[in-house]
Amino acid sequence: MIALASFSRNAFLALAAVLVCVATAFAQSDPLPSWNDTAPKQAIVAFVDRVTAENTTDFVPESDRIAVFDNDGTLWVEHPMYTQLAFALDRVKLLAPQHPEWKDKQPFKAVLDGDLKALAASGEKGLVELIMATHAGMTVDEFQEIVTEWLATARHPRFDRPYTELVYQPMLELLAYLRTNGFKTYIVSGGGVEFMRPWAKDVYGIPPEQVIGSSIKTEFILRDGLPILFRLPEVNFVDDKAGKPVGINAAIGRRPIAAFGNSDGDLEMLQWTTVGGSIPRFGLIVHHTDAEREYAYDRNTEFGRLDKALDIAPNNGWTVVDMKADWKEIFPQK
Amino acid sequence: MIALASFSRNAFLALAAVLVCVATAFAQSDPLPSWNDTAPKQAIVAFVDRVTAENTTDFVPESDRIAVFDNDGTLWVEHPMYTQLAFALDRVKLLAPQHPEWKDKQPFKAVLDGDLKALAASGEKGLVELIMATHAGMTVDEFQEIVTEWLATARHPRFDRPYTELVYQPMLELLAYLRTNGFKTYIVSGGGVEFMRPWAKDVYGIPPEQVIGSSIKTEFILRDGLPILFRLPEVNFVDDKAGKPVGINAAIGRRPIAAFGNSDGDLEMLQWTTVGGSIPRFGLIVHHTDAEREYAYDRNTEFGRLDKALDIAPNNGWTVVDMKADWKEIFPQK
Repeated sequence: MIALASFSRNAFLALAAVLVCVATAFAQSDPLPSWNDTAPKQAIVAFVDRVTAENTTDFVPESDRIAVFDNDGTLWVEHPMYTQLAFALDRVKLLAPQHPEWKDKQPFKAVLDGDLKALAASGEKGLVELIMATHAGMTVDEFQEIVTEWLATARHPRFDRPYTELVYQPMLELLAYLRTNGFKTYIVSGGGVEFMRPWAKDVYGIPPEQVIGSSIKTEFILRDGLPILFRLPEVNFVDDKAGKPVGINAAIGRRPIAAFGNSDGDLEMLQWTTVGGSIPRFGLIVHHTDAEREYAYDRNTEFGRLDKALDIAPNNGWTVVDMKADWKEIFPQK
Repeated sequence: MIALASFSRNAFLALAAVLVCVATAFAQSDPLPSWNDTAPKQAIVAFVDRVTAENTTDFVPESDRIAVFDNDGTLWVEHPMYTQLAFALDRVKLLAPQHPEWKDKQPFKAVLDGDLKALAASGEKGLVELIMATHAGMTVDEFQEIVTEWLATARHPRFDRPYTELVYQPMLELLAYLRTNGFKTYIVSGGGVEFMRPWAKDVYGIPPEQVIGSSIKTEFILRDGLPILFRLPEVNFVDDKAGKPVGINAAIGRRPIAAFGNSDGDLEMLQWTTVGGSIPRFGLIVHHTDAEREYAYDRNTEFGRLDKALDIAPNNGWTVVDMKADWKEIFPQK
């Protein structure tokens, strides 16, 4: 009995070990573990299988496997306001002692008074003024340090975590999955390119040269014999809406085959990527439907309005992610 | 005797075979066979050895091994005029029937009359007019086809070869050598980015996203339901002189560690790349000194003037290539 019990126990352990191995293998073979096995995940996997199947008509060579991702609301959280706007507001407060005139001047007064209604009333013009006052007047290197320092201490008001931790775990997995399959992944954001570059590599695995965004003008000068690029208070390029295809072409020089967005700001990028052409193409919209774990918004919001793109998604064959139903996890585990 | 003769003959053949192998091995081990073994080649190899030597203070990780190359006069021929200008002149002649007014209007009249003096007199303003009339008014895709078709038939007036064959063999070897050593190679040219992208991959091994250049504005529109980018007759960015560091930063987001140019248009790029910073850096100027095999020019020329950069090269530690003395070959063999 002892021998038999021992044998059985060993056999059991061996069987258990095998099962663990099989389970692990299965788990490892799922590159998108935070996605439920619903339509969006199936569509993504089917597309990737299709373009990577050699000796088929749908095969796309690696050099053409370009995938573009919006940032705010697609890769990281954009509510209650764009993270870059939170950065600008913090900088206004920080710089206020050097600008006594701001106490009586909009939109700065609104920021210093915490009057978000007055701030909203200042409109796009006010926003541009805020950006110029807080994002210009230093070198490119200095600005990168300012961004890095701010991100190291700033925390999201609701989730009380650093903003760089409030990235979407399913999208991190998607970025890695695409790269494993020979895709080159780019950010194409309405946000400032120099605001994203300092951390995009660490957080998303995307190097600076694959970050496309809005920009202000810079000027090359020698300062004390050393070359610098100085940031000027003048808009250079707005990488939003119809600007996104322009920005993509300027930086990449060819059409992507996959685009991922979440708002009407991504509509033209999705069109440019998916409409027409002879090779397979993929478009996806992240629909924020999860008020409990993140936020729920679409047609009526200041940040990340999704209206027209949601309407035309079906006709264009774009996959729409229902965040609540399709994502197992929202943010990376702490 | 017969046996001995036979033995000797076999031994001789074996020895010969060994010598051929050794010679081949030596030849294969030289990544820059078209460079004479003079100071520039030695400086290039020393720099590459230095930044790739692991566990040394000078080691540079692959992600930072960015090398930027001017195009006109650095990678391909720029005399008797910039190739893109030859393209524009040909297009003026081609389009003239649709523009009867050009017969009496400068700078077009000068082009149609073959009056290069009057053309030069029209200055930069005239040049911009020529570019706008010949480079705008079509989609980005259409323009790429126009360029490709022109390059397929156009021939250089002196060498009677396609322009894409009038690239410098030593520089092709240098591009490949740097890439073999983990460098990412970029073109940073005053020429039009869309004029270079269609052929840079085939000719230089440089994909579209690593070509930086001057550009005109483009507009995204839906034409018959299909998304296009339309080229507008408006300057967007001039990637020359102080524009080069700006263009580099906009596209790459960090400083290169090696820069290669041939004219004062590359001076700021060379400064931005090599002056200051803690890691090893390399700057090189191609000096056109070979009137027999190519051209000889520097301080007094319309195309590719090299004056101030030549003066300050020694103080900045920039390597100057004497084309006549340092290059065994100029162009690839036919």
